[in-house]
Amino acid sequence: MKMIDNRSGFEVLDRRECLRLLAGEDVGRVGVVEAGSPLVLPVNFGMDGDIIVFRTGPGTKLSEARGHPACFEVDHFDRESKAGWSVVVRGRMEEVTEHSPALLARLAHLAEPWLEGDRTHVVRIVPSSITGRRVPGPRP
Amino acid sequence: MKMIDNRSGFEVLDRRECLRLLAGEDVGRVGVVEAGSPLVLPVNFGMDGDIIVFRTGPGTKLSEARGHPACFEVDHFDRESKAGWSVVVRGRMEEVTEHSPALLARLAHLAEPWLEGDRTHVVRIVPSSITGRRVPGPRP
Repeated sequence: MKMIDNRSGFEVLDRRECLRLLAGEDVGRVGVVEAGSPLVLPVNFGMDGDIIVFRTGPGTKLSEARGHPACFEVDHFDRESKAGWSVVVRGRMEEVTEHSPALLARLAHLAEPWLEGDRTHVVRIVPSSITGRRVPGPRP
Repeated sequence: MKMIDNRSGFEVLDRRECLRLLAGEDVGRVGVVEAGSPLVLPVNFGMDGDIIVFRTGPGTKLSEARGHPACFEVDHFDRESKAGWSVVVRGRMEEVTEHSPALLARLAHLAEPWLEGDRTHVVRIVPSSITGRRVPGPRP
Protein backbone atom coordinates (compact mmCIF):
# COMPACT_ATOMS: atom_id res chain seq x y z
CA MET A 1 0.00 0.00 0.00
CA LYS A 2 1.36 3.41 -0.97
CA MET A 3 1.12 6.14 1.66
CA ILE A 4 0.46 9.51 0.05
CA ASP A 5 0.81 12.80 1.93
CA ASN A 6 -2.31 14.58 0.68
CA ARG A 7 -1.05 18.08 1.35
CA SER A 8 2.30 17.77 -0.41
CA GLY A 9 1.51 15.02 -2.94
CA PHE A 10 4.58 13.04 -1.82
CA GLU A 11 4.57 9.28 -1.46
CA VAL A 12 5.88 8.45 2.02
CA LEU A 13 8.66 5.82 2.09
CA ASP A 14 9.03 3.34 4.92
CA ARG A 15 12.23 2.88 6.90
CA ARG A 16 13.22 -0.30 5.09
CA GLU A 17 12.97 1.43 1.69
CA CYS A 18 14.88 4.45 3.05
CA LEU A 19 17.74 2.20 4.19
CA ARG A 20 17.79 0.43 0.81
CA LEU A 21 18.04 3.79 -1.00
CA LEU A 22 20.76 5.03 1.37
CA ALA A 23 22.81 1.88 0.72
CA GLY A 24 22.77 2.57 -3.03
CA GLU A 25 24.36 6.02 -2.87
CA ASP A 26 27.97 7.27 -2.58
CA VAL A 27 27.37 10.96 -1.90
CA GLY A 28 25.08 12.59 0.66
CA ARG A 29 24.82 15.98 2.30
CA VAL A 30 25.49 16.62 5.96
CA GLY A 31 23.68 19.47 7.67
CA VAL A 32 25.09 20.93 10.88
CA VAL A 33 24.61 24.11 12.88
CA GLU A 34 27.63 26.42 12.94
CA ALA A 35 27.37 29.45 15.24
CA GLY A 36 23.58 29.35 15.00
CA SER A 37 23.50 29.08 11.19
CA PRO A 38 22.85 25.96 9.13
CA LEU A 39 25.63 24.60 6.93
CA VAL A 40 25.15 21.85 4.33
CA LEU A 41 28.14 20.08 2.76
CA PRO A 42 28.38 17.01 0.51
CA VAL A 43 30.38 13.98 1.66
CA ASN A 44 31.16 10.47 0.50
CA PHE A 45 29.63 8.07 2.97
CA GLY A 46 29.01 4.46 3.83
CA MET A 47 26.40 2.69 5.96
CA ASP A 48 27.06 0.60 9.07
CA GLY A 49 23.59 -0.86 9.58
CA ASP A 50 21.42 2.23 9.93
CA ILE A 51 24.34 4.47 10.91
CA ILE A 52 25.83 6.97 8.44
CA VAL A 53 29.65 6.93 8.36
CA PHE A 54 31.91 9.46 6.66
CA ARG A 55 35.38 10.91 6.94
CA THR A 56 36.52 14.46 7.39
CA GLY A 57 39.71 16.38 8.16
CA PRO A 58 40.77 17.63 11.60
CA GLY A 59 39.57 21.17 12.33
CA THR A 60 36.94 21.17 9.57
CA LYS A 61 33.47 22.55 10.14
CA LEU A 62 32.04 19.03 10.05
CA SER A 63 34.63 17.75 12.50
CA GLU A 64 33.76 20.61 14.90
CA ALA A 65 30.11 19.51 14.92
CA ARG A 66 30.76 16.22 16.68
CA GLY A 67 28.58 15.67 19.72
CA HIS A 68 25.88 17.86 18.18
CA PRO A 69 22.66 17.21 16.23
CA ALA A 70 23.14 16.58 12.53
CA CYS A 71 21.03 15.89 9.48
CA PHE A 72 21.96 13.75 6.51
CA GLU A 73 20.18 13.86 3.16
CA VAL A 74 20.42 11.80 -0.03
CA ASP A 75 18.24 12.13 -3.07
CA HIS A 76 17.92 11.28 -6.71
CA PHE A 77 15.81 13.38 -9.07
CA ASP A 78 15.37 13.08 -12.80
CA ARG A 79 14.76 16.26 -14.74
CA GLU A 80 13.09 14.52 -17.70
CA SER A 81 10.47 12.59 -15.76
CA LYS A 82 10.23 15.15 -12.93
CA ALA A 83 10.29 12.21 -10.55
CA GLY A 84 12.62 11.22 -7.75
CA TRP A 85 13.05 10.53 -4.07
CA SER A 86 14.82 11.81 -0.99
CA VAL A 87 15.77 10.34 2.36
CA VAL A 88 16.47 12.46 5.44
CA VAL A 89 18.24 11.11 8.51
CA ARG A 90 18.28 13.15 11.71
CA GLY A 91 20.47 12.24 14.64
CA ARG A 92 23.61 12.97 16.55
CA MET A 93 27.10 13.26 15.11
CA GLU A 94 29.82 11.30 16.91
CA GLU A 95 33.50 10.90 16.23
CA VAL A 96 34.82 7.32 16.24
CA THR A 97 37.96 7.48 18.33
CA GLU A 98 41.14 5.47 18.48
CA HIS A 99 39.89 3.83 21.68
CA SER A 100 38.24 1.31 19.34
CA PRO A 101 40.93 0.67 16.69
CA ALA A 102 39.19 -2.30 15.08
CA LEU A 103 35.93 -0.37 14.74
CA LEU A 104 37.83 2.68 13.50
CA ALA A 105 39.59 0.68 10.79
CA ARG A 106 36.36 -1.01 9.68
CA LEU A 107 34.40 2.25 9.50
CA ALA A 108 37.26 4.16 7.82
CA HIS A 109 37.23 1.53 5.10
CA LEU A 110 33.42 1.73 4.75
CA ALA A 111 33.63 5.47 4.16
CA GLU A 112 36.51 5.66 1.68
CA PRO A 113 36.37 9.20 0.21
CA TRP A 114 36.85 9.92 -3.50
CA LEU A 115 39.37 12.57 -2.53
CA GLU A 116 41.75 11.39 0.18
CA GLY A 117 43.18 14.74 1.41
CA ASP A 118 43.70 14.49 5.15
CA ARG A 119 40.28 13.01 5.89
CA THR A 120 41.54 10.99 8.83
CA HIS A 121 38.62 11.61 11.19
CA VAL A 122 35.87 9.01 11.08
CA VAL A 123 32.50 10.45 11.99
CA ARG A 124 29.11 8.81 12.27
CA ILE A 125 25.54 9.97 12.51
CA VAL A 126 23.46 7.74 14.76
CA PRO A 127 19.86 8.16 13.59
CA SER A 128 16.98 9.26 15.78
CA SER A 129 14.70 9.39 12.73
CA ILE A 130 14.86 8.21 9.12
CA THR A 131 12.19 9.53 6.75
CA GLY A 132 11.80 9.42 3.00
CA ARG A 133 9.49 10.56 0.28
CA ARG A 134 9.05 9.97 -3.39
CA VAL A 135 7.88 12.44 -6.03
CA PRO A 136 5.92 10.22 -8.40
CA GLY A 137 6.21 12.51 -11.44
CA PRO A 138 3.23 14.02 -13.25
CA ARG A 139 0.23 11.80 -13.90
CA PRO A 140 0.01 10.62 -17.51
CA MET B 1 44.27 29.84 -12.98
CA LYS B 2 42.87 27.02 -10.90
CA MET B 3 42.78 27.56 -7.13
CA ILE B 4 43.41 24.30 -5.30
CA ASP B 5 42.81 23.87 -1.58
CA ASN B 6 45.92 21.94 -0.60
CA ARG B 7 44.46 20.40 2.52
CA SER B 8 41.28 19.03 0.95
CA GLY B 9 42.40 18.64 -2.68
CA PHE B 10 39.32 20.59 -3.89
CA GLU B 11 39.48 23.09 -6.70
CA VAL B 12 37.91 26.34 -5.45
CA LEU B 13 35.25 27.82 -7.77
CA ASP B 14 34.76 31.55 -8.14
CA ARG B 15 31.43 33.28 -7.62
CA ARG B 16 30.72 33.63 -11.35
CA GLU B 17 31.18 29.89 -11.90
CA CYS B 18 29.04 29.14 -8.82
CA LEU B 19 26.19 31.26 -10.22
CA ARG B 20 26.51 29.55 -13.61
CA LEU B 21 26.26 26.11 -11.97
CA LEU B 22 23.29 27.18 -9.82
CA ALA B 23 21.45 28.42 -12.91
CA GLY B 24 21.78 25.00 -14.55
CA GLU B 25 20.04 23.01 -11.79
CA ASP B 26 16.37 22.36 -10.93
CA VAL B 27 16.75 20.78 -7.49
CA GLY B 28 18.76 21.99 -4.51
CA ARG B 29 18.72 21.35 -0.76
CA VAL B 30 17.74 23.89 1.83
CA GLY B 31 19.28 23.68 5.29
CA VAL B 32 17.56 25.34 8.22
CA VAL B 33 17.74 25.12 12.00
CA GLU B 34 14.63 23.69 13.63
CA ALA B 35 14.56 23.80 17.46
CA GLY B 36 18.37 23.81 17.55
CA SER B 37 18.77 20.90 15.13
CA PRO B 38 19.72 21.08 11.46
CA LEU B 39 17.20 19.98 8.83
CA VAL B 40 17.99 19.51 5.13
CA LEU B 41 15.22 19.17 2.53
CA PRO B 42 15.29 19.13 -1.27
CA VAL B 43 13.32 21.75 -3.23
CA ASN B 44 12.78 22.84 -6.81
CA PHE B 45 14.21 26.31 -7.19
CA GLY B 46 14.93 29.17 -9.55
CA MET B 47 17.41 32.04 -9.52
CA ASP B 48 16.58 35.75 -9.47
CA GLY B 49 20.05 37.16 -10.06
CA ASP B 50 22.07 35.72 -7.17
CA ILE B 51 18.98 35.08 -5.02
CA ILE B 52 17.58 31.56 -4.56
CA VAL B 53 13.79 31.35 -4.96
CA PHE B 54 11.59 28.39 -4.09
CA ARG B 55 8.05 27.60 -3.04
CA THR B 56 6.73 25.84 0.00
CA GLY B 57 3.42 25.21 1.74
CA PRO B 58 2.04 27.18 4.69
CA GLY B 59 3.04 25.73 8.05
CA THR B 60 5.88 23.61 6.65
CA LYS B 61 9.22 23.42 8.40
CA LEU B 62 10.80 25.47 5.62
CA SER B 63 8.06 28.09 5.81
CA GLU B 64 8.62 28.40 9.57
CA ALA B 65 12.29 29.22 9.02
CA ARG B 66 11.63 32.55 7.31
CA GLY B 67 13.57 35.43 8.83
CA HIS B 68 16.30 33.02 9.92
CA PRO B 69 19.69 31.98 8.55
CA ALA B 70 19.54 29.32 5.83
CA CYS B 71 21.92 27.35 3.68
CA PHE B 72 21.32 26.17 0.13
CA GLU B 73 23.36 23.47 -1.59
CA VAL B 74 23.47 22.10 -5.13
CA ASP B 75 25.89 19.54 -6.45
CA HIS B 76 26.53 17.10 -9.23
CA PHE B 77 28.75 14.06 -8.73
CA ASP B 78 29.51 11.24 -11.12
CA ARG B 79 30.13 7.84 -9.61
CA GLU B 80 32.13 6.51 -12.59
CA SER B 81 34.65 9.35 -12.84
CA LYS B 82 34.54 10.13 -9.09
CA ALA B 83 34.41 13.78 -10.10
CA GLY B 84 31.90 16.54 -9.44
CA TRP B 85 31.21 19.90 -7.91
CA SER B 86 29.13 21.55 -5.22
CA VAL B 87 27.97 25.09 -4.53
CA VAL B 88 26.93 26.31 -1.08
CA VAL B 89 24.97 29.51 -0.53
CA ARG B 90 24.57 30.88 2.99
CA GLY B 91 22.20 33.70 3.77
CA ARG B 92 18.88 34.67 5.22
CA MET B 93 15.52 33.19 4.32
CA GLU B 94 12.74 35.67 3.56
CA GLU B 95 9.15 35.21 2.53
CA VAL B 96 7.98 37.25 -0.47
CA THR B 97 4.67 38.72 0.63
CA GLU B 98 1.58 39.87 -1.16
CA HIS B 99 2.59 43.46 -0.54
CA SER B 100 4.53 43.17 -3.80
CA PRO B 101 2.11 41.26 -6.11
CA ALA B 102 4.14 41.78 -9.30
CA LEU B 103 7.32 40.52 -7.65
CA LEU B 104 5.41 37.65 -6.07
CA ALA B 105 3.96 36.55 -9.42
CA ARG B 106 7.34 36.79 -11.16
CA LEU B 107 9.17 34.80 -8.46
CA ALA B 108 6.38 32.22 -8.13
CA HIS B 109 6.76 31.55 -11.85
CA LEU B 110 10.58 31.31 -11.57
CA ALA B 111 10.26 28.64 -8.90
CA GLU B 112 7.57 26.41 -10.44
CA PRO B 113 7.69 23.15 -8.43
CA TRP B 114 7.48 19.70 -10.03
CA LEU B 115 4.80 18.79 -7.52
CA GLU B 116 2.25 21.57 -7.10
CA GLY B 117 0.57 20.54 -3.81
CA ASP B 118 -0.23 23.71 -1.88
CA ARG B 119 3.16 25.32 -2.35
CA THR B 120 1.74 28.83 -2.38
CA HIS B 121 4.44 30.48 -0.27
CA VAL B 122 7.30 32.04 -2.21
CA VAL B 123 10.52 32.08 -0.23
CA ARG B 124 13.93 33.42 -1.13
CA ILE B 125 17.42 33.10 0.26
CA VAL B 126 19.41 36.31 -0.05
CA PRO B 127 23.06 35.25 -0.09
CA SER B 128 25.69 36.52 2.30
CA SER B 129 28.21 34.06 0.83
CA ILE B 130 28.40 31.83 -2.24
CA THR B 131 31.20 29.26 -2.34
CA GLY B 132 31.90 26.32 -4.58
CA ARG B 133 34.37 23.53 -5.05
CA ARG B 134 35.13 20.93 -7.63
CA VAL B 135 36.42 17.40 -7.06
CA PRO B 136 38.67 16.87 -10.08
CA GLY B 137 38.53 13.06 -10.06
CA PRO B 138 41.57 10.82 -9.58
CA ARG B 139 44.74 11.71 -11.48
CA PRO B 140 45.33 9.44 -14.48
